[in-house]
Amino acid sequence: MQTTAMLETYPAEINLDRRMLAAVIEAALECSQTCTACADACLSEDMIDQLRRCIRTNLDCADICDTTARVLSRHTGYDANITRAQLQACAQACRSCGDECEAHASMHEHCRICADVCRRCEAACHELLAVIG
Amino acid sequence: MQTTAMLETYPAEINLDRRMLAAVIEAALECSQTCTACADACLSEDMIDQLRRCIRTNLDCADICDTTARVLSRHTGYDANITRAQLQACAQACRSCGDECEAHASMHEHCRICADVCRRCEAACHELLAVIG
Amino acid sequence: MQTTAMLETYPAEINLDRRMLAAVIEAALECSQTCTACADACLSEDMIDQLRRCIRTNLDCADICDTTARVLSRHTGYDANITRAQLQACAQACRSCGDECEAHASMHEHCRICADVCRRCEAACHELLAVIG
Amino acid sequence: MQTTAMLETYPAEINLDRRMLAAVIEAALECSQTCTACADACLSEDMIDQLRRCIRTNLDCADICDTTARVLSRHTGYDANITRAQLQACAQACRSCGDECEAHASMHEHCRICADVCRRCEAACHELLAVIG
Repeated sequence: MQTTAMLETYPAEINLDRRMLAAVIEAALECSQTCTACADACLSEDMIDQLRRCIRTNLDCADICDTTARVLSRHTGYDANITRAQLQACAQACRSCGDECEAHASMHEHCRICADVCRRCEAACHELLAVIG
Repeated sequence: MQTTAMLETYPAEINLDRRMLAAVIEAALECSQTCTACADACLSEDMIDQLRRCIRTNLDCADICDTTARVLSRHTGYDANITRAQLQACAQACRSCGDECEAHASMHEHCRICADVCRRCEAACHELLAVIG
Repeated sequence: MQTTAMLETYPAEINLDRRMLAAVIEAALECSQTCTACADACLSEDMIDQLRRCIRTNLDCADICDTTARVLSRHTGYDANITRAQLQACAQACRSCGDECEAHASMHEHCRICADVCRRCEAACHELLAVIG
Repeated sequence: MQTTAMLETYPAEINLDRRMLAAVIEAALECSQTCTACADACLSEDMIDQLRRCIRTNLDCADICDTTARVLSRHTGYDANITRAQLQACAQACRSCGDECEAHASMHEHCRICADVCRRCEAACHELLAVIG
């Protein structure tokens, strides 16, 4: 990922810590890809009947993380209210999806990995939220 | 749009009022398309220098509305916490984008239309938020 | 939808017929929403085991239609090669998803509606492709 | 990114080479993030007047790469026709965006980085297309 390199070439001021920003953007993109893959892996499991909610939460979390990574990748005309609200939605989606995947972690390795990734992304969102205030 | 028809064919219970749900989904999709078009119209204006923030807010609002329409189009394994948080982010993005576009409404007809659409979507989000509690 | 109104306020030339453009954008957005809803309805069906491929194709078709609507909503710096390639991907996704949903149309009303919507979007993409050349 | 780890936990067969798949998924996600950031950096440049087309092409490329990464992250109910068509659209978007960014590479470091990332993603798409046939 060129996240950090791109932050360094931004021609104006950035209102947030660049290192922290890069970390959240990358965590959100990792989480989006992992949730898309986890939903698809669940869709191929024999016990799909017990994974309906997991698939749905994965799909929501993938979309929300994707949008969050995009909002955080823009710095022109920064609006703290939008960034804060979308980060809160992202932290919530990661918490719900992390809980749901964790419940299947002992049965499905993809859910175990996905739960970990969700926890990391949730934590990264909270760190940035603490700075934005 | 087949939003209402699709809600009627959903094979399980839906925890929210279907008419209200359809209204918010369609408002969010309309807002996403309008914001994408407004960002692009701003990009072709002579006075682009004064529209930088407007373009950026349009891009955020388009992404956030898109994701919100997707979350609201899913009912399996409903999680009120995710829906609420994403609706709040959507209402905030629409408010910021509505304010920004309104500031250019007398100069640019696309900003005038976009401001109206953002206001309608913001109001629809708040109506649904009032019901979710 | 304000698709037509927004096309009319675009401040520069548009290389494609505005009426046809509006029709494809709206068909693609309708198809994206319907496919998202159909995937979710399938996810709640008792016979989910036979709907795995349908869910997956719906998810692909939703993403591809969404992106196609965005590309078609932009006119600044028009590049026929990108528009053509994305329209071809959209027509293909709608064809595959229409076929898949049609196979379940007699069992599931959401698949019947979704198949119709996919056919309409596929036809709209081909009409525009014929003009682009 | 957990792309490779997630591919390894997929519970059924995958019709494509997992190492190659992981490489394209990661290239597409990198390209999507870089294009979003490049569009935003261009939006803050003094000479924005000469970057209108660059911003637009970046926005298209970001959306198309995003969708391509999602399609490639799904393996259930694989449809070679959809994958091929979306990969072709992605290769085309990356070629157009790479050309456009390269034209500004000597002036703007973000365009130089973005051109490189687009070239890598275009090449990765072509490698996978050669295998799909």
